[in-house]
Amino acid sequence: MQEIERLIQLLARLPGLGPRSARRAALELIRKRESLMRPLAQAMAEAADAIRTCSTCGNLDVSDPCPICADPRRDDRAICVVEQVGDLWALERAAGFTGRYHVLGGVLSALDGVGPEDLTIGRLIDRVGPGKPVEEVILATNLTVDGQTTAHYITERLEGSGVTVTRLAHGVPVGGELDYLDDGTLSAALKARQALPGS
Amino acid sequence: MQEIERLIQLLARLPGLGPRSARRAALELIRKRESLMRPLAQAMAEAADAIRTCSTCGNLDVSDPCPICADPRRDDRAICVVEQVGDLWALERAAGFTGRYHVLGGVLSALDGVGPEDLTIGRLIDRVGPGKPVEEVILATNLTVDGQTTAHYITERLEGSGVTVTRLAHGVPVGGELDYLDDGTLSAALKARQALPGS
Repeated sequence: MQEIERLIQLLARLPGLGPRSARRAALELIRKRESLMRPLAQAMAEAADAIRTCSTCGNLDVSDPCPICADPRRDDRAICVVEQVGDLWALERAAGFTGRYHVLGGVLSALDGVGPEDLTIGRLIDRVGPGKPVEEVILATNLTVDGQTTAHYITERLEGSGVTVTRLAHGVPVGGELDYLDDGTLSAALKARQALPGS
Repeated sequence: MQEIERLIQLLARLPGLGPRSARRAALELIRKRESLMRPLAQAMAEAADAIRTCSTCGNLDVSDPCPICADPRRDDRAICVVEQVGDLWALERAAGFTGRYHVLGGVLSALDGVGPEDLTIGRLIDRVGPGKPVEEVILATNLTVDGQTTAHYITERLEGSGVTVTRLAHGVPVGGELDYLDDGTLSAALKARQALPGS
């Protein structure tokens, strides 16, 4: 039973699984020992061996530099700055951005004692310096207080570097219903309203 | 990226994780490669090697017979019949039952083509036969149509064997609010109402 309890405890540390659902997941794994538990154990061991942090942008992949940094077809003139690797993946799934990325590894937070030196902000400044092809830095940090503080701090650090600093548009999500939106988003969408073509 | 996609696909097969939360779980695992992903991979590999199905009751554990079947202090006179191993574990956590168990491995289902020979009903009958110490069989199958059909079938098969067949009480869950209960439970609780002591 010790082996099972340990499995449940480790599974419960995954986001989205509590103690109860970890137990159900463990049971499902044990039931499907050969078809699920062994392949998953092996996939994890292989991933743990293979995955590297890209020393340029901070992305996680099996090569360093990562495929995005190594791809010559991507646009060197724009860097999109995100908090976490998950944000980078989300933007790649949206497939609208053809430039490069920079993963901060978190946000500035006085409360959690996270300062600029704990993030990759220094490396970002290096990537943007004189003689570099970067023309635009897109700040795609989250719309939280810490995310916006971080964006503000980076904007200040980039002053005088000659690059244009932009942020993602805020507004009503596609498919979103006004009635269910929070006030902050609604008022941001109202402030950033756009003229319809031909009006 | 292939390693990560494979990891996400396997994680998404766990109950409680969809494609989106599997992606988040994979990211968390990759971030905590040494502290979470490797230990979990190892715990799974070890569990896959160690865990056996008890040939007496159908429980899953590292020994056969399982610790419950092997425990001489447990009461041989009662067998509690459950659908799945998870139900056995839930009853053990409730810690109110000191007898033995029998895991059916599912329920009879005409729709899914599950007949008596697909479950461990034959082995249950063998455990109850003449000369055996069993006096009571508690049917703890779920209160679904299939669960109740299975309970009914087992009751018929046990007729004439001399054992008492009982089922779990149905009623209002402890801490349950009537307002949120389904009608079936409420009417079952009303039918099974009990006199208060001294009334």
